[in-house]
Amino acid sequence: MKVIGIDPGLSATGYGVVERIGNHITPLGWGVIRSGGNPLSQRLERLYGEVVALFKEHSPEVVAVEDIFTGRNPRTSLTLGHARGVVLLAAAQGGYSVQEYPTATVKQAVVGYGRASKQQVGYMVLKLLGMSGVELPEDASDALAVALCSIFRGSSPLL
Amino acid sequence: MKVIGIDPGLSATGYGVVERIGNHITPLGWGVIRSGGNPLSQRLERLYGEVVALFKEHSPEVVAVEDIFTGRNPRTSLTLGHARGVVLLAAAQGGYSVQEYPTATVKQAVVGYGRASKQQVGYMVLKLLGMSGVELPEDASDALAVALCSIFRGSSPLL
Repeated sequence: MKVIGIDPGLSATGYGVVERIGNHITPLGWGVIRSGGNPLSQRLERLYGEVVALFKEHSPEVVAVEDIFTGRNPRTSLTLGHARGVVLLAAAQGGYSVQEYPTATVKQAVVGYGRASKQQVGYMVLKLLGMSGVELPEDASDALAVALCSIFRGSSPLL
Repeated sequence: MKVIGIDPGLSATGYGVVERIGNHITPLGWGVIRSGGNPLSQRLERLYGEVVALFKEHSPEVVAVEDIFTGRNPRTSLTLGHARGVVLLAAAQGGYSVQEYPTATVKQAVVGYGRASKQQVGYMVLKLLGMSGVELPEDASDALAVALCSIFRGSSPLL
C-alpha cells in the first residue's frame, strides 16, 4: 500500500511518499514543490506538471490531500484553493484514489491530539517513520503526516 | 479579437464568448458549465474537461477570468479557488493570453460604476451586445461582462 500525502500551497506544496507492507511503514520520498514567479496561471501550470510527474514516478494507490478549514482569511483561502484544485485534478486524472483529511484529523491520527503543534507533528513523523535526525522541511513533514493519517485510518488492526 | 470571459464557480461556471471586429462587438456564445456530484476531485476533472473543450471550440486570443476579492468566507473562497485554479490551468496549458479582472473593474468597465448591481450588469451586457430580450443565466451574463471588460480595456480609442 503506497500513499502520497500532499500539503498543498501556491508557493510551496509539500509531498511525502510512504509505503506500508504488513505492519511496517517506510518513507520512500519527500520534498517541497515550489512554484514562484508570475502570472498565477503559469505558476499553476508548473505546479500541475510537477505533481503529475511525482504521481507517475511513484504510482501510489492513494493520494491523500490535506484539507484546511480554519484560521485563514478569504484571500488566502482563495489562493490556497487554486493550488489545491490543481492537485486534486491531477490525482483524479491519474485515476488514483483521492482522500481528503482535515488538519485536525491528521494531527489526531499522528499525535493523538487534534490541536497538536506543528513541532509535535514533525517530531512524531520522524519517530513513526524511523527518521530520527533527518531535517525535514515543514511542508514535507506535514505531507508525510497526511500520508501516515491515510495509512492509519485505512489500516488493519495490526497498526 | 476573440475573448472568452469566465465567471468560475465549483457548481456553476459561467462563460461568454465575444468577438470584436473593428468597432463592432458580437456575442458568439454563452452558457453555464455545471459540475455537480462528488467527490470534489471528479467534479474538478469534469469542469476541466468542459473548459478545455470550450477553449478548443472557440480558439480565443484571450481568456479573461473574474477575480473575486470580497464578501466571502474562507470556506467559500477555498471552494471557489479550486474551480478558478482549474480554469486558469486549462488556459495556461492552451497557451492563451490570460487576464484576470476584479469584479469591481468589470462593473466599472460595463456599467461605469464599480459597485453596480448584478441586474445593472445584466442589463448593460444585453444592451452592449445587442441581445435585448434574451434571457441570460446570471453566471453567463457575468462571464460576458468579463469578456466585455477585457475588450474595452484592451481596445483602441474607437471603442
